[in-house]
Amino acid sequence: MTDVKPISPPRTVGAGTESSRVKTGVVMMNLGGPATLDDVEPFLLELFADREIIQLPLQRWLGPFIARRRTPRVRSLYASIGGGSPILRYTEAQGRGMVARLDRISPETAPHKFYVAFRYTRPRSDDALRAMQADGVQRAVAFTQYPQFSCSTTGSSLNELWRAAARTGLRHAFEWSVIDRWAVHQGFIAAMTETVREGMEQFEPADREKVLLLFSAHSLPLDVIDRGDAYPQEVGASVQRVVEQLGRSNPYILAYQSDVGPVRWLGPSTERVLRRLGARGHKHVLVVPIAFTSDHIETLSELDREYGEVARQAGIQHYKRAPALNDRPLFLDGLAQIVREHLGSGLPHSSQYLTRCPGCTNPQCRNVLNPVGMGARS
Amino acid sequence: MTDVKPISPPRTVGAGTESSRVKTGVVMMNLGGPATLDDVEPFLLELFADREIIQLPLQRWLGPFIARRRTPRVRSLYASIGGGSPILRYTEAQGRGMVARLDRISPETAPHKFYVAFRYTRPRSDDALRAMQADGVQRAVAFTQYPQFSCSTTGSSLNELWRAAARTGLRHAFEWSVIDRWAVHQGFIAAMTETVREGMEQFEPADREKVLLLFSAHSLPLDVIDRGDAYPQEVGASVQRVVEQLGRSNPYILAYQSDVGPVRWLGPSTERVLRRLGARGHKHVLVVPIAFTSDHIETLSELDREYGEVARQAGIQHYKRAPALNDRPLFLDGLAQIVREHLGSGLPHSSQYLTRCPGCTNPQCRNVLNPVGMGARS
Repeated sequence: MTDVKPISPPRTVGAGTESSRVKTGVVMMNLGGPATLDDVEPFLLELFADREIIQLPLQRWLGPFIARRRTPRVRSLYASIGGGSPILRYTEAQGRGMVARLDRISPETAPHKFYVAFRYTRPRSDDALRAMQADGVQRAVAFTQYPQFSCSTTGSSLNELWRAAARTGLRHAFEWSVIDRWAVHQGFIAAMTETVREGMEQFEPADREKVLLLFSAHSLPLDVIDRGDAYPQEVGASVQRVVEQLGRSNPYILAYQSDVGPVRWLGPSTERVLRRLGARGHKHVLVVPIAFTSDHIETLSELDREYGEVARQAGIQHYKRAPALNDRPLFLDGLAQIVREHLGSGLPHSSQYLTRCPGCTNPQCRNVLNPVGMGARS
Repeated sequence: MTDVKPISPPRTVGAGTESSRVKTGVVMMNLGGPATLDDVEPFLLELFADREIIQLPLQRWLGPFIARRRTPRVRSLYASIGGGSPILRYTEAQGRGMVARLDRISPETAPHKFYVAFRYTRPRSDDALRAMQADGVQRAVAFTQYPQFSCSTTGSSLNELWRAAARTGLRHAFEWSVIDRWAVHQGFIAAMTETVREGMEQFEPADREKVLLLFSAHSLPLDVIDRGDAYPQEVGASVQRVVEQLGRSNPYILAYQSDVGPVRWLGPSTERVLRRLGARGHKHVLVVPIAFTSDHIETLSELDREYGEVARQAGIQHYKRAPALNDRPLFLDGLAQIVREHLGSGLPHSSQYLTRCPGCTNPQCRNVLNPVGMGARS
């Protein structure tokens, strides 16, 4: 852990004139999700247009075709979880909690303010950048909300952030640094371990030692894996750390969910693992979303409803899910610690960030606009 | 770490009559390799007959066909590294060092003796078991020499050990426990980190910060991965721990080597990664064998010669390999610590061991013969 030495005496923040000028802006980058049912189609159109996450032949025509064809089914899924994604609500709660803690534990970089930049829905990178300009931000941190790095997620969000800076005429407005991964940061691991403990409490005490922990992360197409994406290595490390910190002797498995389409994805598939666990006579399974920070369609609908039904049919009588991190205080502590250590390090990014995947075909990848400490560059 | 409390006063071991009766036998299980060029064909015949590692249609005919067809090429590879595999020599050195340390740090389980059980060449499980019987062993530890668990490696070796016990009439002869994985044991990580530091010293001091660390593990067919094999998760965790302990800021990538045949294997492929790193202008690469404990054909021939040539052609001017663990004292310390903690725990295996892969189709898997503490059973 890096200790931050105050470089100026702490000052009063929050109320008062000082707080009107934000010293450090933290951009929370995530996928996002449709806030209402009418946002589902535009969200899918954006998603299937992003060649950094999905590469289709004739994408300009096939992308919209697939997006529109999937819209009715996805709309009904969002309808079943309350009419929209809760990801903005949770991200805002995470941002508020993080900023309040940062103002306390890192007074020399305060006041802090958070900005949400979703990839496929509002608020977008452009919205975040304009709000930062209005607030007079100079020092900006691009903070991925994906704990484990993948070019499909964090990489795509960062590239979009830099493009948005060019689009909005704000290329020179901020000094940037990037928090590009935190797969084994203790602040994340401690909070994730707490969710597993709470998940275990959903089982009868006498049954808890029988529970199999099924860690589930979003899958990626094997073509992405074969390019050298860091994701599976980092997910594997997260799982190991949580299991160690949990200190229980329950067996565990790592599986990957949400694969779609005809190409082959990284396995084993969470859904198939559940069917097979049931067939083997497992009756107690706790599924742990290890690569998501907030509840959204992949937890509330896919893990809880769809796979819940798979588990039931397979004979897994006690299928439970560990809660998402959402706004739990220990996770808000963790987010603030991650940012504080990053700011204290003075580094523009992790030592992994600049090395592109060996098989990368995207010339935009792994840039930082005006990296902190280098002065503004064009 | 589990502290072992001496339950009886330490006694003199080594010389003297006491040492003729072995108290704890440690079976070191590994793949093995042909000791001479004439052993290459029988070795390959055994390898391609093992359905726990390779599943072929009409295996009884196709296995020998493939083995015989590959023999000339594999013979020439072994000829190029000195006429045979050094794995027995290293395993024996590891066993001697481990046992000497164990007698010192775990006097209550001394005298210890090691036995080598290779999977596809002599000495085999049958040889080990007969030697243990001759030595009067009762307490036996099956100690995999694969740090990360896979059903293709450790699983196959254990199943063969139990079959050999039945074949030799020694089903009831020993009380067994199993050390089935040690992917993040500090004794392993410390020694592996030392090999990376030594590997770095092969570069000019001024160049060391430019070095990309390419961790390379033996690949597995994707069908094995999709059954739910623990291997990639555990390899990912090993890599993370070594990088952390190394405390350098060099970028790193995990890749998988040695895939053969027409099926799709887990990527990214080490060979292809090297080609692409060269094409991207990387000039300094240190390859680190993260899943092997001794030099053998995959390090001395594949990594050093074959991929060395790939790297050279790709323009990687400084391609080096971290040394294998072999008989370095820190690794011998680690092996002894792993066994001592295991014996001190009183447990018959890890908490992961009994849970079969969700997609397992092998009814033999994950057994322990006469587990320690249960008394001899038939």
